[in-house]
Amino acid sequence: MTTRRYFIALGAAAAFVKAVKPAFAQKTIAGKEKLIVRSFHPEDLETPVELFNSFITPNDLFYVRHHLGAPGTESTNWKLDVSGLVSSPQSFALEDVRRFPRASVTVTLECAGNGRAFFDPAVAGIQWEKGAVGTARWTGARLADILNKAGIKSETKYVSFDGADKGFAKIPDFIRNLPLSKAMHPDTIIAYEMNGVPIPPLHGFPLRLIVPGWEGAYSVKWLEKIAALDAEHDGFFVKTAYRYPTRRVMPGATVDAKDMAPLTGLVVKSLITSPKDKASARTGTSVLVTGFAWAGEDEIAKVDISVDGGSTWMEAALGREHERYSWRQFSREIKFPAAGYYTVMSRATDQKGRMQPIEPAWNPSGYLWNAIDKVRVNVEAA
Amino acid sequence: MTTRRYFIALGAAAAFVKAVKPAFAQKTIAGKEKLIVRSFHPEDLETPVELFNSFITPNDLFYVRHHLGAPGTESTNWKLDVSGLVSSPQSFALEDVRRFPRASVTVTLECAGNGRAFFDPAVAGIQWEKGAVGTARWTGARLADILNKAGIKSETKYVSFDGADKGFAKIPDFIRNLPLSKAMHPDTIIAYEMNGVPIPPLHGFPLRLIVPGWEGAYSVKWLEKIAALDAEHDGFFVKTAYRYPTRRVMPGATVDAKDMAPLTGLVVKSLITSPKDKASARTGTSVLVTGFAWAGEDEIAKVDISVDGGSTWMEAALGREHERYSWRQFSREIKFPAAGYYTVMSRATDQKGRMQPIEPAWNPSGYLWNAIDKVRVNVEAA
Repeated sequence: MTTRRYFIALGAAAAFVKAVKPAFAQKTIAGKEKLIVRSFHPEDLETPVELFNSFITPNDLFYVRHHLGAPGTESTNWKLDVSGLVSSPQSFALEDVRRFPRASVTVTLECAGNGRAFFDPAVAGIQWEKGAVGTARWTGARLADILNKAGIKSETKYVSFDGADKGFAKIPDFIRNLPLSKAMHPDTIIAYEMNGVPIPPLHGFPLRLIVPGWEGAYSVKWLEKIAALDAEHDGFFVKTAYRYPTRRVMPGATVDAKDMAPLTGLVVKSLITSPKDKASARTGTSVLVTGFAWAGEDEIAKVDISVDGGSTWMEAALGREHERYSWRQFSREIKFPAAGYYTVMSRATDQKGRMQPIEPAWNPSGYLWNAIDKVRVNVEAA
Repeated sequence: MTTRRYFIALGAAAAFVKAVKPAFAQKTIAGKEKLIVRSFHPEDLETPVELFNSFITPNDLFYVRHHLGAPGTESTNWKLDVSGLVSSPQSFALEDVRRFPRASVTVTLECAGNGRAFFDPAVAGIQWEKGAVGTARWTGARLADILNKAGIKSETKYVSFDGADKGFAKIPDFIRNLPLSKAMHPDTIIAYEMNGVPIPPLHGFPLRLIVPGWEGAYSVKWLEKIAALDAEHDGFFVKTAYRYPTRRVMPGATVDAKDMAPLTGLVVKSLITSPKDKASARTGTSVLVTGFAWAGEDEIAKVDISVDGGSTWMEAALGREHERYSWRQFSREIKFPAAGYYTVMSRATDQKGRMQPIEPAWNPSGYLWNAIDKVRVNVEAA
């Protein structure tokens, strides 16, 4: 299946849902009432930017990105199977997974397509703006412990992950894989808790793979099947989707799959959460510019703020809460010198010196948008 | 006359010219064959960026911006009158002007509307892209010497300038003024030579006011009449046009004239002249990125180049030719690391630390566009 066919199938599914929607008069999704619905089925829900006001994103505010819709996963006899190139195939019950040493990791997850709506020319896919990102503390078993129990054979190069969601109509099953090194990394876990409670169904109950620092589609929900492989998995969501050109391409270009490689880590990025876009302010009053910055597997070195369209920059303070793989809060008090219309910008730089670009590279699926962020503020005389 | 009515009148004039144009099959303007014609009458001609390859812009490549069309100014009995608040009104013949001490100044002139085409939302007016700018060496008499000969009275605050071009249809006469301090500045001259030859008719023969560092519309062509005034001149081209909001306004906003002030100095800006936009290059080959940077009355401190969409910057070398009020050439050799599509950017900073913005302030007439410049280069494997 090509990306194009995938989007045609997705479009047909969306048209069907639109046709039956008035019968339900559905406006929000239960438990996620504050989120922006980008699609009802599959559930694609974006967090309004102004609701990000704590280091940890509460579960009810956390974005949702599904390809096939949440399956029913309330079964009490859940099994996690490990097969493929292993010496001892396993079928773990939930209690078995819980018996492994507990590991916790605080991770900023972000959809690779977050910001897709800003690419020019426009690209197909869910038109995420800024809120397909969030930070949670995940607790579970280390994937390496699970794999070691099954005994990975030496020819293993990739490990694949399949959740309980199944392909339907023309949309293929959502199966992803990891290179062995990332699979065996001690921070890669199979989580059963999200922010101290069992993972909610929309976030992968009962088990979810958590791949810190990498784009969200690696963190497979409702995890049922793991397989050790000697090559990349051959499915649509590895071979066609979530791939990125190996070189910068001309905006609007068609790119062969052979000229693309799988996405991996998230890129350096920042998000202004306050003031809200199109906010009003008064001269002489201090305004706190605050938000979050992240850089996937890397750490944020600094965040700069501009109020003059990017001519001059002021360094923001970074928040006390600070964990690897997690965003960092930033803040800077500013006073607007005079009444007028301001564009407030934030620009993050990571520890490797990579800075958010002015113009992110266009790519056919609209991944990894990370332009310098901006909000508009109308300042009136006090 | 409002700005709106001015543009309606201009539109009507343009429609008329368009209607009669096929009869002449005019494609270029004599002596300016290499320039882009934005309007035939009045003559509005833009220099293609790739033709800027020397510190001095040759006269035949120099941009032209007229409001009313070039008048016939070949008369041998030209007079320059000085009147208003002066103790001894004057009527200088050309020989009289030439008898004052010669003064020369090398100046980068730029139309305030250069780059207007890039504002979003779009604004009315000639849709200049990048080439309404150029640098010439002007020679003539100091305006202060001329004014002192006439004896400026103490109540003088402004000096107005009127050329031989006259208003027609609904378009008012083009009269501009200067505050006294800029008029009396020793670098403000009445030129009779442009790059060592008598000023060509399209550039103001026989006399042109040259106001260094300020937007081009101050440098009045075919200068006939100077008047000392105790207040700003009351005409359309002072009270309505060439004004800029005193505060940043919301894109698309309507702004009252009382909330605008006359434009004065040019802002910090750079222009990549090579490689040309949409150029091709090969990996492994050095490519010289070169162009010009200017900052009106201020000087360029540095120019940085980016080839990665503005994430990282490399400092360019500044050219040896270096005069106040003139642009500075910059250059940097780069090698493209791999095949692909690159956006090459240039970003100038002036001696006061002002840097080109990412997003220049929108304004109703589309003046002072000075965003970080960019060209696109398609790099193929060698």
